[in-house]
Amino acid sequence: MSLLLNYTYNQNLQQSVTLGGVKNLKEDHVHLSYGFPNSDLFPLSELAEAAATSTLTNGRNSLHYSGGSGTAVVRQWISNRLEKRNIQASPQEIVVTAGAGQAIDVTARVLVNQGDEVWIENPSFFGAIRSFELAGATLKAFDTDDNGLVVSEVERELEERVKKQKTLPKFIYVMPNFHNPTGVTLTLERRKQLAALAKKYGFYILEDDAYAELQYAGETLPAIYSFAPNHVIYTGTFSKIIAPGIRLGWVVANADLLSYYSQFLLGSQTNPYTQEIIAYFLQDNEFEPYLQKLIAAYSRQLEFMIERIDEEFGDAVTYTRPSGGFFITITFKVPIEINKLVEKAEFEGVSIVGGAAFYIDQQSHQKVRLCFTYSNEAAIEKGISRLAKAYNRLKETVSI
Amino acid sequence: MSLLLNYTYNQNLQQSVTLGGVKNLKEDHVHLSYGFPNSDLFPLSELAEAAATSTLTNGRNSLHYSGGSGTAVVRQWISNRLEKRNIQASPQEIVVTAGAGQAIDVTARVLVNQGDEVWIENPSFFGAIRSFELAGATLKAFDTDDNGLVVSEVERELEERVKKQKTLPKFIYVMPNFHNPTGVTLTLERRKQLAALAKKYGFYILEDDAYAELQYAGETLPAIYSFAPNHVIYTGTFSKIIAPGIRLGWVVANADLLSYYSQFLLGSQTNPYTQEIIAYFLQDNEFEPYLQKLIAAYSRQLEFMIERIDEEFGDAVTYTRPSGGFFITITFKVPIEINKLVEKAEFEGVSIVGGAAFYIDQQSHQKVRLCFTYSNEAAIEKGISRLAKAYNRLKETVSI
Repeated sequence: MSLLLNYTYNQNLQQSVTLGGVKNLKEDHVHLSYGFPNSDLFPLSELAEAAATSTLTNGRNSLHYSGGSGTAVVRQWISNRLEKRNIQASPQEIVVTAGAGQAIDVTARVLVNQGDEVWIENPSFFGAIRSFELAGATLKAFDTDDNGLVVSEVERELEERVKKQKTLPKFIYVMPNFHNPTGVTLTLERRKQLAALAKKYGFYILEDDAYAELQYAGETLPAIYSFAPNHVIYTGTFSKIIAPGIRLGWVVANADLLSYYSQFLLGSQTNPYTQEIIAYFLQDNEFEPYLQKLIAAYSRQLEFMIERIDEEFGDAVTYTRPSGGFFITITFKVPIEINKLVEKAEFEGVSIVGGAAFYIDQQSHQKVRLCFTYSNEAAIEKGISRLAKAYNRLKETVSI
Repeated sequence: MSLLLNYTYNQNLQQSVTLGGVKNLKEDHVHLSYGFPNSDLFPLSELAEAAATSTLTNGRNSLHYSGGSGTAVVRQWISNRLEKRNIQASPQEIVVTAGAGQAIDVTARVLVNQGDEVWIENPSFFGAIRSFELAGATLKAFDTDDNGLVVSEVERELEERVKKQKTLPKFIYVMPNFHNPTGVTLTLERRKQLAALAKKYGFYILEDDAYAELQYAGETLPAIYSFAPNHVIYTGTFSKIIAPGIRLGWVVANADLLSYYSQFLLGSQTNPYTQEIIAYFLQDNEFEPYLQKLIAAYSRQLEFMIERIDEEFGDAVTYTRPSGGFFITITFKVPIEINKLVEKAEFEGVSIVGGAAFYIDQQSHQKVRLCFTYSNEAAIEKGISRLAKAYNRLKETVSI
């Protein structure tokens, strides 16, 4: 250990740095752990063309800190696109970030002082949990059901706090569409209720809508933002609809609040060279047909994974069928040690994420998260069958 | 104002968000304020080629969070390159960041708890000052002279602290080569002394070597890191030698310390798509001749700016001739209001940065920073003559 002795590092640093999927490089290994898109769907030639053209045509600007005209193009595109969710946000109310991850991280930095409370869903996205903890937040989690966050429990707690003159949360972090890891969607009614609570009690909602565009079923609901624009910080990303490697997402909030964000963004523009490439990509290609191709492919993969789960596990598990996104969470009816299942599955040749990563009590709650987007059908077939094998072996050893 | 009432934001948020140069879009305006490279020197066709090829060839990997083989290529390149400064760092001791700016920001987040002391040079880079303040640090600045940081003053303060059982700094932030804004270089003797102090008293040195590769005169000195690898966090960047818009820099530190950094980096790789492009760029082009072209051009621009300063200001100013980097700082012998000079210069058609941006006492110390890299000789000529005009007008009005 080469850290300095008798030296105090940031008090919020975490012991473990491993999150999510294990890296396994074996040729035939199946990754149902990574929250990745399918590599076959990356628009490689379109991006290569956009990259070359934007560099030659506009590199003199896009290669500077301040970026080229593409940064305005990207924000205008986001602004237009958000209208579909009833979000009226001008480009001045949008800041481009290094993925939704940076939007989440900076939100915590802008709003939280050491010890402040942040409320989250139970379960929630581990990357966000980490950012909140690193910012010094104390977390409290509220249950979710098949209709998303149980907003009535949030309301009860708020009433209680006010009655006892206790502090309120600085913000509540919610994934309304195709939740990570559960895949569930927050109902319209609950969206309105939550927005009303933020207004009534004076806190922010951080609405993480990373998966919104990848909707496979059901109707498109208005964003929570649309019901309380001054109380909602909305974030989205190009990671799921173009590619994570370009590290571009966005945050929408009122301009006064966003002026605080700029202090943490380390420069006048996030990733301006890549923004210019994406601006060219968006201008030179039709987005809607491209998106429909993604939706058709992922929708088939989801369908296929569900068939395989039904086939291999039958009544042994329950799940909620997601109407979009990347993930499905399955719950084992008979108690098993999920850590051991993850280990045995890894040995059989499939990576999954145990439930503990998503709960602040670090219990698995008998759940595992499976990603259906990264792997093609052949890999999904192999993966679910290997998982079943691991499960059956584990059941034998605990002699149920 | 649409911020929430009765709501406490981060206590370290700053009132002003404007740093450095003013944005002035007038056609004929001269920017001696921006710390930018010369756009004419961007390797546009080489980057376009690298971008297209890397996307087509390796996009299936580089477009994922985890990136492609380019991330290892980039770290190996940095590792090799640093040998020139006596830095022996394996790729495992190097993490790629979103410019040196993120390395500086994350260093503060890893090492600082609210109220901890960070020591800096007087003057220092405003972006770093902001990051330290946002992390909750209390700053103390130590004077610099023509040989860089006056290390004996640092030593005296450390002795005093220990004698009085007072707290020591968490780290000291130093720019040893071609300092921003002064352009001066820390001597070999002082580098060794500072490294010895860090070891003796048990604190870190954050060595910001952003301009190192752009050396126009003098001999290359070993990095402070080379004298105390366990006590120095070293940062560099591609911003000055390739382009700022790609947002890629690096931090070098022992692997244990770097494992803390990864918690703040929001993903397994910074900007993996752009890293892949840069890996192809570095593999397919000879770096040394390319760098020599930059050095020759900037060296001429520096020479030319100094001639123009001598011509226009004569004995009215003093300066230290930089042997590298982007900046020269001039000090006015007769007291004038630098804020007014900046304003008048802007009006005459040239942007400069007043000294106050670099001092934590927010006084100008009769200095202005001029960047000689962004503008070509014609623009430099115009800029310095406009600055002289503004200076002469200001002198008249204060009737010296």
